[in-house]
Parts: sequence; structure tokens; C-alpha cells
Amino acid sequence: MATRKTLRKEKTSKAPARKTAGKTTTRKKAPTKKSARKKAPAKKAAATDPSGITARIKKQDALTVGLIRTAATDVHRVINRKGKPDLAFPVRSLKNVSYSAKRGYFEIGKQKKVRTLTVNTVKSFAQTLRMMGLSKELVETNDFATKRDAYYQSKNWEDARFDEQSESDTVMDDIEAMFSMRGTSREQLRFVPDEHGGAVAGRLIVIDPDRDTGEIERIDCSRFGSGAYSIPSSVEHLSFETDAKFVLAIETGGVFQRLQNHKFWQTENCILVSLAGVPTRATRRFIRKLSDECRIPVYAFVDCDPYGISNIYRTLKVGSGNAAHLSQFFCVPQARFLGVTPQDIVDYELPTHPLLDVDIKRAKDALKNDPFFKSHKPWQKAIEQLLKMGVRAEQQALAKWGLNYVIEEYLPNKLAHRDKFLP
Amino acid sequence: MATRKTLRKEKTSKAPARKTAGKTTTRKKAPTKKSARKKAPAKKAAATDPSGITARIKKQDALTVGLIRTAATDVHRVINRKGKPDLAFPVRSLKNVSYSAKRGYFEIGKQKKVRTLTVNTVKSFAQTLRMMGLSKELVETNDFATKRDAYYQSKNWEDARFDEQSESDTVMDDIEAMFSMRGTSREQLRFVPDEHGGAVAGRLIVIDPDRDTGEIERIDCSRFGSGAYSIPSSVEHLSFETDAKFVLAIETGGVFQRLQNHKFWQTENCILVSLAGVPTRATRRFIRKLSDECRIPVYAFVDCDPYGISNIYRTLKVGSGNAAHLSQFFCVPQARFLGVTPQDIVDYELPTHPLLDVDIKRAKDALKNDPFFKSHKPWQKAIEQLLKMGVRAEQQALAKWGLNYVIEEYLPNKLAHRDKFLP
Repeated sequence: MATRKTLRKEKTSKAPARKTAGKTTTRKKAPTKKSARKKAPAKKAAATDPSGITARIKKQDALTVGLIRTAATDVHRVINRKGKPDLAFPVRSLKNVSYSAKRGYFEIGKQKKVRTLTVNTVKSFAQTLRMMGLSKELVETNDFATKRDAYYQSKNWEDARFDEQSESDTVMDDIEAMFSMRGTSREQLRFVPDEHGGAVAGRLIVIDPDRDTGEIERIDCSRFGSGAYSIPSSVEHLSFETDAKFVLAIETGGVFQRLQNHKFWQTENCILVSLAGVPTRATRRFIRKLSDECRIPVYAFVDCDPYGISNIYRTLKVGSGNAAHLSQFFCVPQARFLGVTPQDIVDYELPTHPLLDVDIKRAKDALKNDPFFKSHKPWQKAIEQLLKMGVRAEQQALAKWGLNYVIEEYLPNKLAHRDKFLP
Repeated sequence: MATRKTLRKEKTSKAPARKTAGKTTTRKKAPTKKSARKKAPAKKAAATDPSGITARIKKQDALTVGLIRTAATDVHRVINRKGKPDLAFPVRSLKNVSYSAKRGYFEIGKQKKVRTLTVNTVKSFAQTLRMMGLSKELVETNDFATKRDAYYQSKNWEDARFDEQSESDTVMDDIEAMFSMRGTSREQLRFVPDEHGGAVAGRLIVIDPDRDTGEIERIDCSRFGSGAYSIPSSVEHLSFETDAKFVLAIETGGVFQRLQNHKFWQTENCILVSLAGVPTRATRRFIRKLSDECRIPVYAFVDCDPYGISNIYRTLKVGSGNAAHLSQFFCVPQARFLGVTPQDIVDYELPTHPLLDVDIKRAKDALKNDPFFKSHKPWQKAIEQLLKMGVRAEQQALAKWGLNYVIEEYLPNKLAHRDKFLP
């Protein structure tokens, strides 16, 4: 098992000495800096793990390494017997995706593609194994890689190097899909997205163990003033404490900021999450984990238009068709739609904009092709109502009745009738 | 002077009663909720203001209200004398923008457009005054509005209502430009952007007084585990405490997350800010205020391509040409360019991608037309070198030498020679 130290040495062995201003700054200089960096965590090494959080993370890591080791050992054994090893991946195409009304998300089907080691596949086969090896190293050294990182790492893999990032992305997706069938997520393999998550404020304490020392940081999301807690790109290691009654997932930064400045989370005892458009993977996983672990409902508050409904809300709730192998981890099937509903446009006499052609296309497409909307009658009625009215309305349209009407009237009214939320 | 309470009443006076499930939920219900919300801050009312932060904010607010009042009084006086009042705004076009090498940012010129009250301009004149009135109310009630908010608010302004958001945006921009000549920023007028700022981690305490009670929240950006502090959409009311030696402004979320997870800010005693592409207004203002008030330098770490150089870095440093009236508040003239430089591609033997046509066009345009690059020889040489090599490199290309090479070698090497940073 490679230690952090040997891994790093291995990787940097060919790195160039930096020439600056005619002088050669040799690589000997950097280790000094580095050892200073390494020392800092040691000071805190006495930290304990009262709630077993670090132990839980370590157990998951051991499981992940075990899965990778098993897959690799299988290949190795076949080769030793002079056989042709193969690796099987679920087919990641829309044809192999179905909506499970019972589980409430898009599921990947049973179709597999098999990559057998032959003269023609030797490169991609080797690349797949190297990528699995990278994942194992990342878990063992408690590190992570983005897609970009993995691509550039491969430049050291000699003949197994990738020429284009699209190739390494595909191999990473294949591996994720393969291990997702074994209940292991992309983040558990330590492949993390390049963008971090949205902003969070409210009655929530995020518990985050330090990667080096295991020392627990308790982050109180009610103590950020007008700012907020920014969700990291991976949230697998986080746990939560809260007495909040629900999570409110908000489309626009403007409405989030209004609710945060006026401490709406205090009045209504809730947690605010800013989606900032279609939520990133980290944001979706954060909401899902939070809702699962603390058993609190999730309400979505987005613009009343086909984009807000069928892109933002649907992605949050059931995942996206072309990443169905991730839905089991990333969707939030317990989410419900607070508003803005087509009926709200009528009830609250909201100012509207006409639906654009792209809106109409998106709405019709949702009605005709999207298994989620097809299996929910109330949604069909709502989307048909929107199409009939021919208009859309933004969250901020409520400002017609006063900037804080959303806080003082709209949200309390809606929250008094949660049974009316769309599914 | 309208109090918060009367303002709200005025605005919601016509709001519809919510009908739900056959029952009429009258508006009487909401005030109950509201009074609960109002009570909470009262508990903390005893908070003091030892460092005079709240007093400073109140002074600025009084100044802003005074400026608006003066402008409106001038109009009123002329009308009383049966004259034709006018309002003068700086012309917001690239023709009226110049680069001040001394101040280090784009400045708006002396050209003015004058809006005189006539039969033809009566609507836009009234709209401008209503928008100024909105700003005054916002300051007085300690609230804020986004462009969307302001547009929808106007739906209550009867004949002065805006039909399109583009119209209200223009009027808001005009007012901002007008008051920018008097040293007052958009945020001081309480017009805030819809998107919040980037993520921050490191040796920094953000001091944020509560909007209702004035109670100070001290937000320690070294205590967020793998997460971060998310910058609010307006930062005017914030102040800072730090012993950090510099601010590192980072283009990609992936590199920010790596430096945060490895606590790079601890080793190097600095503050990390994630730009997430071209930085938002809030992010730029945050960095500027932080750097000004704490007198610490700002180093930019972005991809080596014309987009990273001429869009991300240039916007951060000198502002953008078509919002030059804001540059005095939002640009960071003290920023310097750490990397990735074209010479780094050579020195660190980085994997590259070919420059695309759009890259070449952008680079040539920068050399030919951009007053910032035209006034800095080292930048001209660097961009010419990039064009000659015909390639670009991403920050994460450093991962070729190991995922943490950026932390252990590249950044320490660069930081040892800060005099070599591009201007």
C-alpha cells in the first residue's frame, strides 16, 4: 500500500527544476516548505473521534479499496491462467435508463458493455486499470482528483496516457458506472467535480472531520451573517446536526440572499440552500444526505417556467437521464415542489413574460417523453395549465406586492398547505 | 421618512388574498408569522458597537440618502419655479471610457447625457425619480433590491411602471453612473446583483454586523473544514481582521478545493478566494475591500489562455469597459499575475492544447485594442509568446507532475520570486 509520501515522490520524480532569473531554483528548496506544511496537523493529533465519524469514513474507504482490489484481482487471475480478462460496464445511454416510480429516480438498466483484453483494446484496457489504480491511491492517501486532474495525471502513464480529456472522462464515467452497481459512488472513488456546491444558511451544524488529523470541525450555518456556508465539491465525509423542520432549495441567488438577510430560517426553523440554477452534483448530494440522515423534507422554490420545472426541479428530484448510474446517490426523491406553480400566477396575480418557443418545446417534451412527468398526473395538469396560459413567471415577480411579500405572505401561506405541493 | 412598517404596508396594500383548497386564507394570517419574525432580533437588542462598525455604516447611509435628497430637491425647486428640470448622467459607452495607468483601472469620461423633463421624456423622467425613491427607501429600511426585484416593484408604480426589465435595468444603470460621480457605489444605493460571490477560505475573520440588531458576527474562514465561506451579494457592510500575507485568487473550483483540503492557507499564511471563472461583482468588491483595508497584495492564479488572461485577470484588475462607472469600486488594481504564464509552459514542461481560433482572436484583440495590455510591455511580450507557441495550458496541467505538485513545488517556487509576477 503506497503511503502518501512514496506516492508523491513517485509522481514528481521527473518534475523540472524551476529556472528563475538566471538562477536555478532546485527542487531541494520545496521540501523545506513542504515539511513545514506537514508539521501543522501534528499539533492537533490528539483529537478524538467520539461520535465515530472518522471510523465510519475509514470503513467506507476500506470497502472501496476492497472493491477495486477484487476487480483487479479477477483480471490478474485470468491473465495468469493465460485467459482473456474482461471488464463489464453498464451501458450509459438513455436507452438503458428507466424511471422507477417506486424508488423515485432514474435507474440504469441491465445492459452491459464488455471490454475484453485483445490487441485492439489493450490501450483502453490498460487505461481503465490505471484509472482504477489512481482511485485506489486516492483513497489510500486520502486525496481526490477532478476529471482534469486525472487527465493530466495520465501524462505520466507512458503508453497508457490519454491524448484527449474526452477519452479519460469516458473511462472515468465507465468506472463510476461499474462501481455504482456495487453501491459505491463517484465521490467514494475520490473522483470529485470541478465546481463546488451552492450556498447554505440556517439551522444546521455541518460536522467535518479534518483530512489529516480527524479533528472534528463543527460549522454552524446560522453564524454566517449575510454570507453563507459554501458546500465543498465532495460531501461524503460530512455529517449533520439540526432541529430544522425542512430544507428550502431556492433557484436564484437574489431570493436566497433576501431570505438569508431577513433570517427566514429563524422564523420558520429551516435550512436555506441556494441552487444557483441547475444544482451541481455537490449541492444535490448535500441535500440528499442531509435529508436522509436528518429525516427532514425538502421543498423546491424555483421560477415558474419549463426550465425551472423540468430542468432544475426534475434534476434535483430524480437525477438526469444521461447520468442515471449516479442518480441513486445524487437525486433527492423526497423533494417536493413548493412553487412558483402555474396556479400561483393566477392566485397571486403575478406579472408574467410570454413563453418562448424553447419553453414551449421543453414543456411539450416533458409531457411527451419524460417518464417522471408522465407518471405524475398533477404535474401533467400543471404543465398543461402553463402551456394554456402561454406565460411564465419568475420567483421575484412576487416583489410586485412588496420586496418582502415573499417572506411575509407567500411562503407562510404556501407552507401552511404543504399537502398541496406538487410531487 | 417612511418606516419599514409603513413601506411594507404601502407595497402590499393590493396583494391578493390566497385561496387554497376552497378556503380563503386572508392576509390577516401572515402578520402573525411576521410579528414572530420581528420579535427574534429584539432579544439581542442590547448588542454594543465597540469598533464603531455600525456607526460607520449609518454614516454612509446618511450620506447616500443626502445625495438622493439633494438631486431630488434640485428637480423639485426647478419645477416650483415653472422651469424644466433635468438630470445629467455620464455616457455609459466604450467611447467615453479611458484607461488610467496611474489609477490602474478603466475610468468613465466626462461626456454626459442630459434628460430634461418634456412631454416626450415625462415617463422615463418619472421612472428615474421613482427608482431614486426606491433606493432611498431601501437605505432607510435597511433593505436591498436586485434588478429583477426593482423591475417587479415598478409594477406598482402605475403610469411609471416598466414594461420590460431591460428598461428598468437601463434606468438603474443610469442612476448608478450618476451617483458614481459622487463616489457612491451601486451597493451603497442598495442595488445588489442577483448572484452571490465566490468561496473564501484561510486566515481571515469577516466581521458582519446584523442588519436588525447591529450585533457583530465574527466569521472565521479558517474554521470551515473542507467547505468555505460564501461571499454575500453585497459586501459594503463587511470589515476584516487578518494577519495573512496575501490573497490568492484562483480560477477553478478544483484547484481551490485542493488548496483548501490541504490547508495551503496555513502553510503560506494566506487567504484563498475561488473566482469560478470571471469573478462576479461581489467577489471583485470583496477582494478589493479586503486588500485595501488590510493592505495585503492579491495574486491571481488562472489558466494560461487568452480567456484567463484577458477576461478573468483583466476584469479582476481593471474592470470591464462597459461598466467603467463601477470600476473605481470593483476593480483590484493592486492584483498581480502569479501564473500560469506562457513561460511556465516551457519551464514546467506542461501538457498543452492548441489555441483555438477564438483564443487567437481574443489575444490579438487584447494586443491591439485593450488599453491595459497596450500600456504594459511585459504583457505584450507574454501574449506574443503565447501566440508564437500556439498553445494554451490549464492550471491543472501541473497535475502531470503529481496531484499536489501545485502545492509542494509550483506555488512555493513562484511565491519565492514575486518580483517576477506579471503586472
